[in-house]
Amino acid sequence: MALQLFELVGTDEDRPFSPYCWRIRMALAHKGLDATSIPWRFTEKDAINKHKSEKVPVLLDGERAVADSWAIANYLEDTYPDRPSLFGGEGGRAVGRMLNWWGDTVVVAGMFPFIVADIHGHLRPVDQVYFRESREARFKKSLEEVASNRDKGVDAFRKSLDPMRLTLKTQPFLGGAAPNYADYIVFGPFQWARAISPFKLLAEDDAIYAWRERMLDAFNGMARNSTGYPV
Amino acid sequence: MALQLFELVGTDEDRPFSPYCWRIRMALAHKGLDATSIPWRFTEKDAINKHKSEKVPVLLDGERAVADSWAIANYLEDTYPDRPSLFGGEGGRAVGRMLNWWGDTVVVAGMFPFIVADIHGHLRPVDQVYFRESREARFKKSLEEVASNRDKGVDAFRKSLDPMRLTLKTQPFLGGAAPNYADYIVFGPFQWARAISPFKLLAEDDAIYAWRERMLDAFNGMARNSTGYPV
Repeated sequence: MALQLFELVGTDEDRPFSPYCWRIRMALAHKGLDATSIPWRFTEKDAINKHKSEKVPVLLDGERAVADSWAIANYLEDTYPDRPSLFGGEGGRAVGRMLNWWGDTVVVAGMFPFIVADIHGHLRPVDQVYFRESREARFKKSLEEVASNRDKGVDAFRKSLDPMRLTLKTQPFLGGAAPNYADYIVFGPFQWARAISPFKLLAEDDAIYAWRERMLDAFNGMARNSTGYPV
Repeated sequence: MALQLFELVGTDEDRPFSPYCWRIRMALAHKGLDATSIPWRFTEKDAINKHKSEKVPVLLDGERAVADSWAIANYLEDTYPDRPSLFGGEGGRAVGRMLNWWGDTVVVAGMFPFIVADIHGHLRPVDQVYFRESREARFKKSLEEVASNRDKGVDAFRKSLDPMRLTLKTQPFLGGAAPNYADYIVFGPFQWARAISPFKLLAEDDAIYAWRERMLDAFNGMARNSTGYPV
């Protein structure tokens, strides 16, 4: 049954940029599953509402629709158990739930202020209106004000990644000797930023920088070959 | 072969209070292994130096000595594979490495300033001198100054636990349906605080408070039966 994945894009369909969609794009590659991408933009709510979701990613697997990146990862693990495991067993899945929240609250939320104004620049006018209104309401200031402090704010963001940085001292991937969904949880946000912002999130001598390079190279450079800025 | 565990204590041998020792005390119970406790105090360096460590926990398994809580957990998992798994498979062990660093850098380091002055009050005079000098050098201020701001600082600490709090919305333990080493990583620090400080680290309506109650009840109330303050 053919798989299809709704993926967030802006003006450029070759530049999918949702951190959550990228988690699933990597997970599909890990499972060796092909999925047709369905480009989706912020204001195209009708296209996914009929699949009972208001956000992407939404995965279509034949008649089945699954929304939310964590739910999709679990769906793929359970539906395609004979393919390489995303979690490395039930213990990995259970702790993965917490790593996923760490990825959302520390990594995604941590880098969002730095790149939010750059996202705006990659959207169609109709999506720009929606994006600016909804995000400025959330931050209670203009996108440009949010981003203006990023050169100072980046140090605290980098520091917040210490648990990951220290882990990479003794293993090349969060998943161990090879990447698994633990890595895709964190790589998704970095690929999101790379797609739409020239801002340097990591110093070149950071172990996380080297990890990101390995992730960009994974699956024959799948993520690196997607349009983005130099990192 | 009899197991023995060096555990940090102060004036009261019934109040072991190292976060790292408590991780292993829980791990041993999880594996159904008995270990004789060897009370150890900060200045008793000779007792563990001969086992090639400067810190506790140190586990003695017959002729073998293993230091460092993460190394001990791995040793127990590999040496006693027929007993209940601490990690739930290799994926859980790999991601557990990162959770362990999160536990060290966010949980242990986050609560340490709040309880550091209370620790001092539970030490013998000779250990108090060592503790005050070494910790004040680290903080670059007196223990009392470090602790003085804890009523304000606790909000940021609680907020830093969001990834865990959100995880507990959909599963009772970090390890899933039942506790495993993922839980002991975080519970160790809470039991450390409980042993030597009356400070309220968690609000009673916090999901992490309820989780801590479940952990205190685990293994027939092993942790709850160890001397400590009401939490």
